[in-house]
Amino acid sequence: MTGRPARRVAFLGLGLVGGSIAQALATNPKTGRPAENRPRMAAWTPAGRGPAAAFAGGAIDHVASDPADALSGADLVIIAAPPLETVELIGRLGSDLRNALLRGALVTDVASTKGAIIAAALAVGVPFVGGHPMAGREAAGYGAARPDLFIDRAWLVVRPPDVPEAAAGPVRWLAEACGAIPMELTAEAHDAATAAISHLPLVASASLVEAVAGPGGDTWSIARRLAASGWDGMTRLARGDARMGAGIATTNAVELAAALRAYRSAIDAWIADLERAGGPDATRLQRRLEAARSYLDEPPTRRE
Amino acid sequence: MTGRPARRVAFLGLGLVGGSIAQALATNPKTGRPAENRPRMAAWTPAGRGPAAAFAGGAIDHVASDPADALSGADLVIIAAPPLETVELIGRLGSDLRNALLRGALVTDVASTKGAIIAAALAVGVPFVGGHPMAGREAAGYGAARPDLFIDRAWLVVRPPDVPEAAAGPVRWLAEACGAIPMELTAEAHDAATAAISHLPLVASASLVEAVAGPGGDTWSIARRLAASGWDGMTRLARGDARMGAGIATTNAVELAAALRAYRSAIDAWIADLERAGGPDATRLQRRLEAARSYLDEPPTRRE
Repeated sequence: MTGRPARRVAFLGLGLVGGSIAQALATNPKTGRPAENRPRMAAWTPAGRGPAAAFAGGAIDHVASDPADALSGADLVIIAAPPLETVELIGRLGSDLRNALLRGALVTDVASTKGAIIAAALAVGVPFVGGHPMAGREAAGYGAARPDLFIDRAWLVVRPPDVPEAAAGPVRWLAEACGAIPMELTAEAHDAATAAISHLPLVASASLVEAVAGPGGDTWSIARRLAASGWDGMTRLARGDARMGAGIATTNAVELAAALRAYRSAIDAWIADLERAGGPDATRLQRRLEAARSYLDEPPTRRE
Repeated sequence: MTGRPARRVAFLGLGLVGGSIAQALATNPKTGRPAENRPRMAAWTPAGRGPAAAFAGGAIDHVASDPADALSGADLVIIAAPPLETVELIGRLGSDLRNALLRGALVTDVASTKGAIIAAALAVGVPFVGGHPMAGREAAGYGAARPDLFIDRAWLVVRPPDVPEAAAGPVRWLAEACGAIPMELTAEAHDAATAAISHLPLVASASLVEAVAGPGGDTWSIARRLAASGWDGMTRLARGDARMGAGIATTNAVELAAALRAYRSAIDAWIADLERAGGPDATRLQRRLEAARSYLDEPPTRRE
């Protein structure tokens, strides 16, 4: 099923992801030329810096003075905010902003978790289909936005229960207009998969820093002088946006805790192998590392 | 104390690290010009391919037919092999190769662990000062060697107990000739610090793959299609040389297990925060992530 173009798009939030979407809708990210069917775009953020920059650069048509101003006439509303702010804005769309929302408009988002956000939309009766473009950069904010951010990346489309497939049309259009590949998932499958592939790695990285460089890390004063690319690579995620990370962990706590328990089991098995009576078995450890590498590289079809 | 140049160097093993040392001793890695005081170099490996390539490229002077041939006349012997092979070669230098070792020669190594290796040297009475250049690449083998691999990197120098500082002169010279910065550590401090900064990250990476992509990882068939740069960065170490990794874990098992226990405590505290009665506290999680980031960036002097 193909997507249906939006005519007016409202952005609530316009940082790295929202800004990249606006730029992609303004300029076809695959050709670099002005987009066909470019929608009219308005954006609001609390401080207004992103919208001002986007307007100056020609990516949006209107710097909204408040959320209601941004929503005016929009048939597609993109909440481009961290998870907790997204939940909060959905609450407002169901209360003080309800009258500003066009009848027939669809609300979508770009946050990294979906269960809590969809529950919030259902609770207040806002017409909602979740979105999650699987792309990011280290840098944050509108200044880091780029129109090609989503090219050939997955864009997860998450419908609430009982919402028909056709209702997701504008979100699929949005994904495709940004050069991404829309991929439908349930909220449960989304949150379990992103817990495994994205949220667990974040907490694994932060925990590594805590264990080695935190107050109990008594070898850190020496170890930090030896840190090389392995350490840097494993701690890169711990340098990310703490507010974003906390929002992700809070809104996906159940799945993330389950993923952490599975991770802890693997760590426990390593401790057991290292503390084996008679000393570690180098051959067994080598097979274990070889197996881990093979899991990464085995064909995707094996267990599907 | 400055280092003392070697006149003849024997390499037992000539992969990425050994090969890069040979190239740096042949060509000053900072100027790219032929090195002053270039030692005569001979190398042996079991298959002989690295030495043949190094000879063809002008980095060494002699492709040794066996270890004794390589040792002939050498005042500095560099064992450039993974940890378990290093232990094995030290055993041979104390037994069947003892007569081939020049009187007054010093043996050093480049392996990532030191306690077990120094114990092996002490056990057979081989004159030994350990070395550990803190540099590496993804690729392995002589083909990946490059003379500038060690420039401005730490080169850990680890003397056994009761070995005077002067005895480490040739190892300091070696480090400096390769453009590295020699740094003295005890074997205990070395193994604790590298367990924290290097060996723990390796096992954390492998455990992440096991937990998510291993036989119990029931969301992997979906999750693998969503994997982005975060996942790739956190699993890069799990793609490394399994035999090397197993040797590291085996020869540094005590310190690595201790580091894993500290890591597990951090993971447990995350699980507790996520499963907190009443739901996770987003503010607390944000502070926790902010603290982790600050540990990485705080000035090195704070806890030294």
